Amino acid sequence: MDAATLKKLLEQVKSGDVSVAEASKSIASLPVRDVGGFAAVDGHRALRQGFPEAVYGESKSAEQIAAIVGELLSLGHSVLVTRMSKDKLPPVQAACPAGRYDAISRTFSLRQGKRLKFAGPVGVVCAGTSDLPVAEEAALTAEVAGAVVRRFVDVGVAGLHRVLRRRDEIAACASVVVCAGMEGALPTVVAGLIPRPVVAVPTSVGYGASLGGIAALLGMLNSCAPNVAVVNIDNGFGAGYYAAMLARKG
Amino acid sequence: MDAATLKKLLEQVKSGDVSVAEASKSIASLPVRDVGGFAAVDGHRALRQGFPEAVYGESKSAEQIAAIVGELLSLGHSVLVTRMSKDKLPPVQAACPAGRYDAISRTFSLRQGKRLKFAGPVGVVCAGTSDLPVAEEAALTAEVAGAVVRRFVDVGVAGLHRVLRRRDEIAACASVVVCAGMEGALPTVVAGLIPRPVVAVPTSVGYGASLGGIAALLGMLNSCAPNVAVVNIDNGFGAGYYAAMLARKG
Amino acid sequence: MDAATLKKLLEQVKSGDVSVAEASKSIASLPVRDVGGFAAVDGHRALRQGFPEAVYGESKSAEQIAAIVGELLSLGHSVLVTRMSKDKLPPVQAACPAGRYDAISRTFSLRQGKRLKFAGPVGVVCAGTSDLPVAEEAALTAEVAGAVVRRFVDVGVAGLHRVLRRRDEIAACASVVVCAGMEGALPTVVAGLIPRPVVAVPTSVGYGASLGGIAALLGMLNSCAPNVAVVNIDNGFGAGYYAAMLARKG
Amino acid sequence: MDAATLKKLLEQVKSGDVSVAEASKSIASLPVRDVGGFAAVDGHRALRQGFPEAVYGESKSAEQIAAIVGELLSLGHSVLVTRMSKDKLPPVQAACPAGRYDAISRTFSLRQGKRLKFAGPVGVVCAGTSDLPVAEEAALTAEVAGAVVRRFVDVGVAGLHRVLRRRDEIAACASVVVCAGMEGALPTVVAGLIPRPVVAVPTSVGYGASLGGIAALLGMLNSCAPNVAVVNIDNGFGAGYYAAMLARKG
Amino acid sequence: MDAATLKKLLEQVKSGDVSVAEASKSIASLPVRDVGGFAAVDGHRALRQGFPEAVYGESKSAEQIAAIVGELLSLGHSVLVTRMSKDKLPPVQAACPAGRYDAISRTFSLRQGKRLKFAGPVGVVCAGTSDLPVAEEAALTAEVAGAVVRRFVDVGVAGLHRVLRRRDEIAACASVVVCAGMEGALPTVVAGLIPRPVVAVPTSVGYGASLGGIAALLGMLNSCAPNVAVVNIDNGFGAGYYAAMLARKG
Amino acid sequence: MDAATLKKLLEQVKSGDVSVAEASKSIASLPVRDVGGFAAVDGHRALRQGFPEAVYGESKSAEQIAAIVGELLSLGHSVLVTRMSKDKLPPVQAACPAGRYDAISRTFSLRQGKRLKFAGPVGVVCAGTSDLPVAEEAALTAEVAGAVVRRFVDVGVAGLHRVLRRRDEIAACASVVVCAGMEGALPTVVAGLIPRPVVAVPTSVGYGASLGGIAALLGMLNSCAPNVAVVNIDNGFGAGYYAAMLARKG
Amino acid sequence: MDAATLKKLLEQVKSGDVSVAEASKSIASLPVRDVGGFAAVDGHRALRQGFPEAVYGESKSAEQIAAIVGELLSLGHSVLVTRMSKDKLPPVQAACPAGRYDAISRTFSLRQGKRLKFAGPVGVVCAGTSDLPVAEEAALTAEVAGAVVRRFVDVGVAGLHRVLRRRDEIAACASVVVCAGMEGALPTVVAGLIPRPVVAVPTSVGYGASLGGIAALLGMLNSCAPNVAVVNIDNGFGAGYYAAMLARKG
Amino acid sequence: MDAATLKKLLEQVKSGDVSVAEASKSIASLPVRDVGGFAAVDGHRALRQGFPEAVYGESKSAEQIAAIVGELLSLGHSVLVTRMSKDKLPPVQAACPAGRYDAISRTFSLRQGKRLKFAGPVGVVCAGTSDLPVAEEAALTAEVAGAVVRRFVDVGVAGLHRVLRRRDEIAACASVVVCAGMEGALPTVVAGLIPRPVVAVPTSVGYGASLGGIAALLGMLNSCAPNVAVVNIDNGFGAGYYAAMLARKG
Repeated sequence: MDAATLKKLLEQVKSGDVSVAEASKSIASLPVRDVGGFAAVDGHRALRQGFPEAVYGESKSAEQIAAIVGELLSLGHSVLVTRMSKDKLPPVQAACPAGRYDAISRTFSLRQGKRLKFAGPVGVVCAGTSDLPVAEEAALTAEVAGAVVRRFVDVGVAGLHRVLRRRDEIAACASVVVCAGMEGALPTVVAGLIPRPVVAVPTSVGYGASLGGIAALLGMLNSCAPNVAVVNIDNGFGAGYYAAMLARKG
Repeated sequence: MDAATLKKLLEQVKSGDVSVAEASKSIASLPVRDVGGFAAVDGHRALRQGFPEAVYGESKSAEQIAAIVGELLSLGHSVLVTRMSKDKLPPVQAACPAGRYDAISRTFSLRQGKRLKFAGPVGVVCAGTSDLPVAEEAALTAEVAGAVVRRFVDVGVAGLHRVLRRRDEIAACASVVVCAGMEGALPTVVAGLIPRPVVAVPTSVGYGASLGGIAALLGMLNSCAPNVAVVNIDNGFGAGYYAAMLARKG
Repeated sequence: MDAATLKKLLEQVKSGDVSVAEASKSIASLPVRDVGGFAAVDGHRALRQGFPEAVYGESKSAEQIAAIVGELLSLGHSVLVTRMSKDKLPPVQAACPAGRYDAISRTFSLRQGKRLKFAGPVGVVCAGTSDLPVAEEAALTAEVAGAVVRRFVDVGVAGLHRVLRRRDEIAACASVVVCAGMEGALPTVVAGLIPRPVVAVPTSVGYGASLGGIAALLGMLNSCAPNVAVVNIDNGFGAGYYAAMLARKG
Repeated sequence: MDAATLKKLLEQVKSGDVSVAEASKSIASLPVRDVGGFAAVDGHRALRQGFPEAVYGESKSAEQIAAIVGELLSLGHSVLVTRMSKDKLPPVQAACPAGRYDAISRTFSLRQGKRLKFAGPVGVVCAGTSDLPVAEEAALTAEVAGAVVRRFVDVGVAGLHRVLRRRDEIAACASVVVCAGMEGALPTVVAGLIPRPVVAVPTSVGYGASLGGIAALLGMLNSCAPNVAVVNIDNGFGAGYYAAMLARKG
Repeated sequence: MDAATLKKLLEQVKSGDVSVAEASKSIASLPVRDVGGFAAVDGHRALRQGFPEAVYGESKSAEQIAAIVGELLSLGHSVLVTRMSKDKLPPVQAACPAGRYDAISRTFSLRQGKRLKFAGPVGVVCAGTSDLPVAEEAALTAEVAGAVVRRFVDVGVAGLHRVLRRRDEIAACASVVVCAGMEGALPTVVAGLIPRPVVAVPTSVGYGASLGGIAALLGMLNSCAPNVAVVNIDNGFGAGYYAAMLARKG
Repeated sequence: MDAATLKKLLEQVKSGDVSVAEASKSIASLPVRDVGGFAAVDGHRALRQGFPEAVYGESKSAEQIAAIVGELLSLGHSVLVTRMSKDKLPPVQAACPAGRYDAISRTFSLRQGKRLKFAGPVGVVCAGTSDLPVAEEAALTAEVAGAVVRRFVDVGVAGLHRVLRRRDEIAACASVVVCAGMEGALPTVVAGLIPRPVVAVPTSVGYGASLGGIAALLGMLNSCAPNVAVVNIDNGFGAGYYAAMLARKG
Repeated sequence: MDAATLKKLLEQVKSGDVSVAEASKSIASLPVRDVGGFAAVDGHRALRQGFPEAVYGESKSAEQIAAIVGELLSLGHSVLVTRMSKDKLPPVQAACPAGRYDAISRTFSLRQGKRLKFAGPVGVVCAGTSDLPVAEEAALTAEVAGAVVRRFVDVGVAGLHRVLRRRDEIAACASVVVCAGMEGALPTVVAGLIPRPVVAVPTSVGYGASLGGIAALLGMLNSCAPNVAVVNIDNGFGAGYYAAMLARKG
Repeated sequence: MDAATLKKLLEQVKSGDVSVAEASKSIASLPVRDVGGFAAVDGHRALRQGFPEAVYGESKSAEQIAAIVGELLSLGHSVLVTRMSKDKLPPVQAACPAGRYDAISRTFSLRQGKRLKFAGPVGVVCAGTSDLPVAEEAALTAEVAGAVVRRFVDVGVAGLHRVLRRRDEIAACASVVVCAGMEGALPTVVAGLIPRPVVAVPTSVGYGASLGGIAALLGMLNSCAPNVAVVNIDNGFGAGYYAAMLARKG
């Protein structure tokens, strides 16, 4: 129930078209979110403002994904399906012929609607090819959200010159996603070089004492640089979403 | 070596005042950060732009802190000492008479310099009195950085109406720090209510299976809301710094 | 040896039909549970009173399951096989043609015997489709135990209005199972809304720092709501059993 | 805003005493919990129905506790302060002269108001003197909630006869709290003996690989008895509260 | 109820002195342990056969310990109080003037009763002075149990000759307790040298990644020698008790 | 170099057939184990005394296993291959036609040589069918070592009467292996019932918070019964070996 | 930009062939590593001096590996591909016909260039066949780096004579890699025998409480021998590289 | 028994002064370490060659330390006592008046004997004042071992220019100890800059998710630089010892 509907109801009460008892019942049973423009309660207004409503593809069938994608399209929303294996593509592509499947990040996406304004591009930094699936998930998420994305690959900590060489380009981004597995030191190093918020994504790349990304996660949480915040292991979607939100104007 | 110095050196080479060998040696031994205006390499330019250069007080003597504070003052910087027990106050207060000690967050601070522009206030939300030391460290850090801070205390998950009642005020902030111990669900709930970036701080409040804040940390990392990023347990300073950076204009 | 048998034996002693020595030996070697109606010692009386004797299907062959199911049927018991993959169905269905296989929860069940009295329905709440297998295992267990079950799906923490909208229906349940993966905050939120015992089930849904359900488990154990108790990760059976026991009359 | 207030407002709209605009604004800004009798949203109605509103004493000063206790008294509520060291007693006792401090569980309490109806007593079982503080916190919590409590101490797993001997008394309880440290096997053994819900409380009693109660916690979560649910380590309050809720009639 | 009592009861039934109903009730309410010589059910028969009934001193007051010690003495039992700080000694010594306090292991003990037969001495091996408190607790426990104990101190893994030099003496023991902190390798090395059961005790000696004895515990559990079994960290009492039981004849 | 060889060498020195220098060099380079009957140094004398030399089959090819088995046979040793999948059987059976493959425990074994003397049988206790593979590995290991083994299956903690009923038979064993997964309480319960050393084997049976057997392992290490020692998770071989060693006479 | 190039540029400035502005820009944008011989900044100079530039084969396709190998060859570098499954061999072998695939360590390698000088051989010690893949990866890495490698297999802790027998040969190495799974005691034992740096590699060999190599890792980190340092679980490449670096002359 | 003694014994056998039987027995009972110059077996020969025999002061009384120090002095050895609190100094200083106590690292040391030859200095790098105690323990250990030590303090990862500026000096060291707490990235960064072996020491500096140094430890073990090996948390002694051993010539 939005403000207009409520007003109309009250006017019907005033005019006697609706009884007090009926109105009382209607108001008490309102979906909370609709009271007085509480649309944000549903957590999705942000998305409707241009941010993608993501579909987590891992635990859904191809048919389920296709159905959801169809609904998103019919509402004029952008589409972003994450962690979707390629064998699920046919029905999804059929439901959304203009969508694009990216095999590296295993995402399916289509950007729709007018582009929001951003203070600058979103940077996505990662050390090597192993971290690429997570980095690409972040990059594509930010792109579907409307951001321009600058990618910085092969920027490792053990060869500092590679990151130093590109410092100015990274510093020109409004916000920066940094993906790293193993010891997870790259976000700290990047954050020390630029006065921008860094969104750190530990990846599960590594073996042995990397503990599936826990080592990188702990490293990032203990960063000595204060412009670093962290998301879950391999959560490229969350990082791209968060960085795009940071880069938006206003 | 900044651009001007380099240019001058090259002109001296051109004019013959400096030999090629000498110039070659000078350039090769340049502190990297000074090449081409690499000042940001030192990670402190952000601070010099108005953000506090924080002093971690826990492992330093009162005299060491006083000396550093004196130096910051002499440079015209803002002062922020975190995790400083009250017994260290006298020499520090003597070094910085205008500074203020806050007993709850155990910080000593003084804001100096011109105020930066912010897109809106920084919100600091916490559930109860136990989380206050961390929340206040975040709030004071953001204030020293120049932000206006809105505090929301006693906003717990088990009594949702308390947070719902203040939704609009929280949504009016440019960025929001949410501190929570125990199960750490508050950042997710807040993030679901507002289209703003949430900086989640797990606190070590709790007992037993809270594992000194690990339970809250894991809860926040696994948040189903994509507008949540996380800092270290009890890291109020980092959260306040990060949120202030997000709230800054431009 | 139940009370009647013991009494009969003592009467045989009294009448001289059984010697003291023989009776002494019989009594000393009694299965403890049979002494004086100690049936509950075997932990299964509750089941015989209408609660299902569950068969954990994961580590048993189809033939073993079929044999046990046959025995349960012959005793007039209800049947509940959990974690049974579909390929084991044929012999089990043959042994119990009236039983029903549920592919989502991977359970096979048949309710038999007279229905017990319950103070109200058992609620089963979960956030999304990923938690459904665990939630359905809980729901079916409670149903085989004789309870009426109300299901509440798609009730997530990041969109509070969805749970608020259904508060009254949930509050009308005598006890409530809440399943959640990831950050595991849903049981706390639900428990804050209703004056009923909540049985929280962490699920292994999630990735990275969800640690296979440990994050959700810790979150639930640290709940700030006192009407929450917790069972093992993915233990839908235990939760449904426990909630049905709570909902029973008397 | 309760139902009566809403009705009155609507009638004022009808009569023209309140304009549609004003009413619209009033309704939109309602504290959510007050809409249509949403009192339970605040999670405390249960408490007001006779259950104690507990004050966690550990992180509060004696004066803070005394003030809260005074407020509870003035509302006619029962009082329960947990984890309060004895040195905080004087002001608290002064604020509530009728209250009683229990040194073993470190609780301060006073039961007030009419007694609720219970289906039977609450049993509190523990193995030895080391677990007593947690067990007493559970017992006193249940008593302040109005339940009759039966205590079973010195009932260890390594000497089964001690628990077997008291089986019937335990089985006569409507619900049973079982506290155990070390290997945490007691709840499983008790649950196997009685057809009643068991609320298991791991305690931090033990050393070495007990990991501060984690070993007992894991043991209880993995119980092979389905009538066991678990609360946090040393959480006697939560267990007593939960068990009292289970024992209530209706 | 022992066999004699049961027989007598049955004879009374036979003779009519006791009614069937009364006898039925008596038998049903028997403490289980007394049925048919079930004395061992109480877990203490072993102790009564010469093994010490240990009192865990840490969580008990001096007065409680003194009372228990007095009772043990009056029953003619041996006395063993473990983890008793020296300040608790006076009342305990008063209750048992012949007892001896050992400051290293913090045990108070007195051996009483006839000595059992042992197949050989119990060896107690440890690497250095840091492990001595645990080793002495093991040694004294075995001695109170009646065993002859051979101590092997300063036998570290990093200097193999020290353990090799004493191999024959160690091999002459009937069972061997090996205490080790840090990497916990000593039990494996000793077990590889002798064809005897080794009872390994991890100690909490170490720092950093020793994790309070967890590293040593894991090392011992993963021993490649099959004649190693493990007890809890710092559990000298359990190891001494177990080793003495292994060394007993028959 | 055994004693005879050394003596011969010294006699050659005496007679002048071998120079002092040569003898000196020979002795200095002696394989240590052969000096003076140091055979036990090699950790295998126990085995040669009738205990099986076990072959860990998991990481070896069928051909490697067959070769080792052939060698053991040619030395007249007993054969025990553990964790051998059935597909490796043909070449192993060909190398040892008299050996027997047990599909439950995945062991291949043949007992040879004269039977050692044992003080009594080895008991092997487990709760259910899921623990059987580990229990059978223990039982077969003890049998190959020459012990008589008594098996006690379906003896769970949640139904105490099942274990109580068989107490006397278990107590008649010289040593007892107890296997348990999930909460791991069975060894403690059994140890409380009998005055015999219990060798506890945690199994990886369970799910969720059983953490692959860690929960059971911790439970067993924290046992309140002092006659319990523990081996690695699923280490049926180690437990059977250890229990057989305990049961041997002398 | 190496020293020669820089000198040439400066001379061009001097001669006027290059303007100051152009030169200034060239220098400021220099890849840092090339400034004045900063080659080591890129971390690969060591490799170019004869050490292998390793390719981590696990996360790369056969074609990617083949391409990189081809490039390494064209530069005259040695080739080392680690963790490459055999099915990827054909294109790699085609790209480097002289290379050799080792099935045990799953490495592909070719040594090129002039051999560096070493102070002595690199020893590689491991206990059994299960650790061989890791040990061989270490050995081959050291060999590609130019070292002579001595292998010591079947040198277990439970049979000390096997390691003692070979002490002199091990002590003759300049540095020693020791691989061990399970309890991880071998590096400590070896380090106690020789005055040489030991590089310890925990392997993931084991089961249950070995926790995938964590037990061995902790054991090695807690070594009581100061001449032990540790690399990641199963990191044979790192250990071989490190040990070869230690063994190099000068 | 050294070579000379053995030779003498054999000559006595030859001459008939010692019987074959007696000689046989003497040889068989030799302490292994003395055979043929096996002095290194005792693990201390390295120390006697100039390396300090360290005394771990934490678990020893001042008197015990003084006695050991006296003995070391009388043997002409260097002295190094680690982790010795200042209150233990008087008797130790009395026993060794020339020794020096360092309050930062809490070590007491005196270098004696002739200086060994080193290939270059040992570098000791750390980020800030908090890591100094560990860094100084490493530096002093290396100095007592005879090495020249270069200290590099205030070289943090978040300000790369500080470490880059000193690259050449660090690269001039023969081996480098790098101490770091929090995220532990410094060793990786340093190792990427220099072609030298880095010995990484995680420190327990940090809070929250630093887990007492575990985060730094994991970070270092997962380093992507192959010239990094790791010692235990806070183990400055081990790192200094190891680095000095690496720096020695030959």
